Amino acid sequence: MKIGFVGLGNMGSAMAANLLAAGHELVVWNRSPEKAERLIAAGARLASSVPDTAGGDLVLTMLANDAAVAEVVFGADGILSSAGQATHVSMSTISVELADRLEETHRAAARGYVSSPVFGRPAAAAAGKLFIVAAGPSEVVARCTPAFTAMSQRVFSLGEKPSAANVVKLCGNFMILAAIESLGEAMTLCQKSGIDKARLLEVLTGTLFGSPIYQLYGQLIVEGNFRPAGFAAPLGLKDMGLVADAARAARVPMPVLGILRDHLLDTIAHDGEDSDWSAIASAIDRSAAL
Amino acid sequence: MKIGFVGLGNMGSAMAANLLAAGHELVVWNRSPEKAERLIAAGARLASSVPDTAGGDLVLTMLANDAAVAEVVFGADGILSSAGQATHVSMSTISVELADRLEETHRAAARGYVSSPVFGRPAAAAAGKLFIVAAGPSEVVARCTPAFTAMSQRVFSLGEKPSAANVVKLCGNFMILAAIESLGEAMTLCQKSGIDKARLLEVLTGTLFGSPIYQLYGQLIVEGNFRPAGFAAPLGLKDMGLVADAARAARVPMPVLGILRDHLLDTIAHDGEDSDWSAIASAIDRSAAL
Amino acid sequence: MKIGFVGLGNMGSAMAANLLAAGHELVVWNRSPEKAERLIAAGARLASSVPDTAGGDLVLTMLANDAAVAEVVFGADGILSSAGQATHVSMSTISVELADRLEETHRAAARGYVSSPVFGRPAAAAAGKLFIVAAGPSEVVARCTPAFTAMSQRVFSLGEKPSAANVVKLCGNFMILAAIESLGEAMTLCQKSGIDKARLLEVLTGTLFGSPIYQLYGQLIVEGNFRPAGFAAPLGLKDMGLVADAARAARVPMPVLGILRDHLLDTIAHDGEDSDWSAIASAIDRSAAL
Amino acid sequence: MKIGFVGLGNMGSAMAANLLAAGHELVVWNRSPEKAERLIAAGARLASSVPDTAGGDLVLTMLANDAAVAEVVFGADGILSSAGQATHVSMSTISVELADRLEETHRAAARGYVSSPVFGRPAAAAAGKLFIVAAGPSEVVARCTPAFTAMSQRVFSLGEKPSAANVVKLCGNFMILAAIESLGEAMTLCQKSGIDKARLLEVLTGTLFGSPIYQLYGQLIVEGNFRPAGFAAPLGLKDMGLVADAARAARVPMPVLGILRDHLLDTIAHDGEDSDWSAIASAIDRSAAL
Repeated sequence: MKIGFVGLGNMGSAMAANLLAAGHELVVWNRSPEKAERLIAAGARLASSVPDTAGGDLVLTMLANDAAVAEVVFGADGILSSAGQATHVSMSTISVELADRLEETHRAAARGYVSSPVFGRPAAAAAGKLFIVAAGPSEVVARCTPAFTAMSQRVFSLGEKPSAANVVKLCGNFMILAAIESLGEAMTLCQKSGIDKARLLEVLTGTLFGSPIYQLYGQLIVEGNFRPAGFAAPLGLKDMGLVADAARAARVPMPVLGILRDHLLDTIAHDGEDSDWSAIASAIDRSAAL
Repeated sequence: MKIGFVGLGNMGSAMAANLLAAGHELVVWNRSPEKAERLIAAGARLASSVPDTAGGDLVLTMLANDAAVAEVVFGADGILSSAGQATHVSMSTISVELADRLEETHRAAARGYVSSPVFGRPAAAAAGKLFIVAAGPSEVVARCTPAFTAMSQRVFSLGEKPSAANVVKLCGNFMILAAIESLGEAMTLCQKSGIDKARLLEVLTGTLFGSPIYQLYGQLIVEGNFRPAGFAAPLGLKDMGLVADAARAARVPMPVLGILRDHLLDTIAHDGEDSDWSAIASAIDRSAAL
Repeated sequence: MKIGFVGLGNMGSAMAANLLAAGHELVVWNRSPEKAERLIAAGARLASSVPDTAGGDLVLTMLANDAAVAEVVFGADGILSSAGQATHVSMSTISVELADRLEETHRAAARGYVSSPVFGRPAAAAAGKLFIVAAGPSEVVARCTPAFTAMSQRVFSLGEKPSAANVVKLCGNFMILAAIESLGEAMTLCQKSGIDKARLLEVLTGTLFGSPIYQLYGQLIVEGNFRPAGFAAPLGLKDMGLVADAARAARVPMPVLGILRDHLLDTIAHDGEDSDWSAIASAIDRSAAL
Repeated sequence: MKIGFVGLGNMGSAMAANLLAAGHELVVWNRSPEKAERLIAAGARLASSVPDTAGGDLVLTMLANDAAVAEVVFGADGILSSAGQATHVSMSTISVELADRLEETHRAAARGYVSSPVFGRPAAAAAGKLFIVAAGPSEVVARCTPAFTAMSQRVFSLGEKPSAANVVKLCGNFMILAAIESLGEAMTLCQKSGIDKARLLEVLTGTLFGSPIYQLYGQLIVEGNFRPAGFAAPLGLKDMGLVADAARAARVPMPVLGILRDHLLDTIAHDGEDSDWSAIASAIDRSAAL
């Protein structure tokens, strides 16, 4: 397929490389064009502008936040201004509200739109082992299959309404941070009771909590290893804000969410902007004078 | 070994049966003696009194709560009044405070004491597949090995201080209910956003949350299947109270714990005493008018 | 003075009337001009446009939310487009962020700006008994004194930075709703313990909590009298959102705020958009199956 | 009247002195008898034992906690063992459960019982300006009037069931700490936003929150003046635990209560046992890295 790719951060670069490796024709764009060098060396073409990425079958966006996506789509020199009719495949973690607006705007422009955020860290992206959560009209999602196959180990289909995929992605991030929080609270209780955090983790992951989330983050908390950040606390705060926006729109109280946001604020207030979001465990320690 | 067993509820009966099957000599006692019938038919002896259970190598207790254990140990006709010197192996979920008191009292009486609560439901107990979390002086814990082997798939050693095992057991229950809570909040958000709870669960367990807890409880929540209770809400409330007691003693704030207790109260206020503790998910639904 | 007044809702109309009564020359504007009729009959002039209100000494805005203020100031036909040099006096409850933006923009246009939100309900506005919380450069705030005197019983000066007044106003609304929440929780506990809510209120207001907030809202809760709304739950939710924005910007965890927002969502989910914000007390009752 | 008085701490001594001054015949008892000296000098008689205090019309208890009251009533040498028929008037802050047990036990012994906890600090006790919240059979409460008159500025009658007075007293303490919490959160937000805590307090107490609680505790928070404690954090923690017990018994979720308990734990973990309970404001500051 002919695919445009906008946003070449850690995740995007790895995903784009897999598209290339799978034989797709790739046109890439990034605000800082030097990030595109390795891909160009591998056969991608550097787009002359954002609209230039939208001339093929698909244009994928993998950007930092709502503002970046909005700029790339609605901006003066954005995808909407392109004559091309590539289906827009939004893979970043964005708000439900923006996803709804993208759906509506693209529909009005007779352009296809799919929300397909991903689960996985840069290593999984590089290995083509992401999980993709996709939603949109089934015939439009179907068009994306070759691209999805190149980037992921599994695709979950969330139905016709694109923003449903964004809700599920946000729920996933909420669930991860909630797991970190409960693990952190239990570990602090153990340590102040004279039990090593590592011992608790061994019991938990050896019995009922064997999933990767508990193993990965449990280890980070045991080691107090929050820098460099795999996923920085301010990004976590942004995502939890998007969860809160979705919950407000749907009129759903989420009490654990309030705790998560407060602990992220505590973490950022103490440690600055560059700690991993799992550093909320150190906020819990601090609250217990540990 | 010669083993006494006090407390023949669903869990205790299954555990005792495995001890018998492994060839141990068993003396059993239960407040309602008819619960002992199957074990007697299988070769156990019915104790004439609680002290009669403490004449062998070990005496195991598997009882409902602190009060029951205290009665069986400190009561007028309790283990402490026995001339026997069996090591007391406390396997119920009891308070840290009671475990400390048991340790101290048994030490004063030159009797061994081990805290070894278990993870697992009755089916796991019947299959000899429990997880045991054991703590106490290592030579005393070592004495229990033949019995533990008969009942469990794995034993975790938590060190010399018996109550450490109780702290870890309580943390495990806290972690389970915290997972249920976060899953419940995410599911309510999804459903009010037009996404089936089952779809979210499929994504979560298919990606990052593959552990049995999320699968088991996620299914119960999707089905709204909270009766009969596998573990009733009032028992959950009791255990969360024990976690709170341990946290208060150790001076550890645990904000998620407050939410769990409030949702259990909400559940019991609405549904009575016989719902499963995972029915807190219905409290979350109610708060969102779902 | 010559004063422009934009926003003639319940609060604004009453405030404008007091300015007229104090002898000021008034030019008024409202999106629905019929709201201006009584003021015109009393001597005010109807502005031909928003910029027409900014030709005198001061232009006061008393509008529903950030969007309305932004439209009136930054919009195509807004205050900024006026040749007049009236000092802008923003009296609505707006975000800290918008206040900062107003300060900056007006400074760049060499126009004075003061943030001066108010405490008080329509009856207090009609009686000229509002409390005004004002901040801005002292010489600019001083210019507002004749107008403030006509509308209020007391003015609090919060210093040179305009948005400080907005922070304080938001804190006040947070404090009010927090008082309602704690009162609601205590009342529900009393009633489920067999004690009339009214009895608790009598004790509280007769001893330590004699302030008007507890008297007013306590009475509403006792009567379950949440319609028509004095201040509707969605407006409360909006304001608590502004508090959360300010807390996020300042990196301040505010755990009570999370509870307030969740109870407002619960209230709106159950009762719709038109209940008073004090109906969070009924969410508390519901959670206890009362 | 002939009155026994058990418990001569700061509060009890002051209350007893007012009974003497009003002309009542007083028999006093305290675990450390030297605390009785000033009262004896003023005309009181030192009881030979606790039962010796129960020979008159009333016996008042003003003790530190449930355990002290239970010891004085149910202990080997307690009020219950007295041949005297004095009505027991329990004025301490005790649990609802103990109050219910006292009612039942005294009724079985044909002895009158009244719960009548007080609001007020030692200075108010010395001035005879306490508030008394009394409950019990009306004819029994009536017997207490002369004593209540000597100690208080106002008596609130809470009906026939004694423990209702204890619920209300606990609710009052909950409301006070909730007010401190919300004030603390707002003050931290202000200070991190560049506004003095004192300025916020001036606005709040000058407008909507003029009651003594906000003035008193607001001043303590502004000054960071938490030692010596007027009411120490561990006592606050004990009382919040009694509120939680009452809420659990009545099946009432109280989310603010969880926050209060966590902040008290944080305070005690950092500052030790001797800070005032209003030091939870410093826990809030800490969480924001202030």
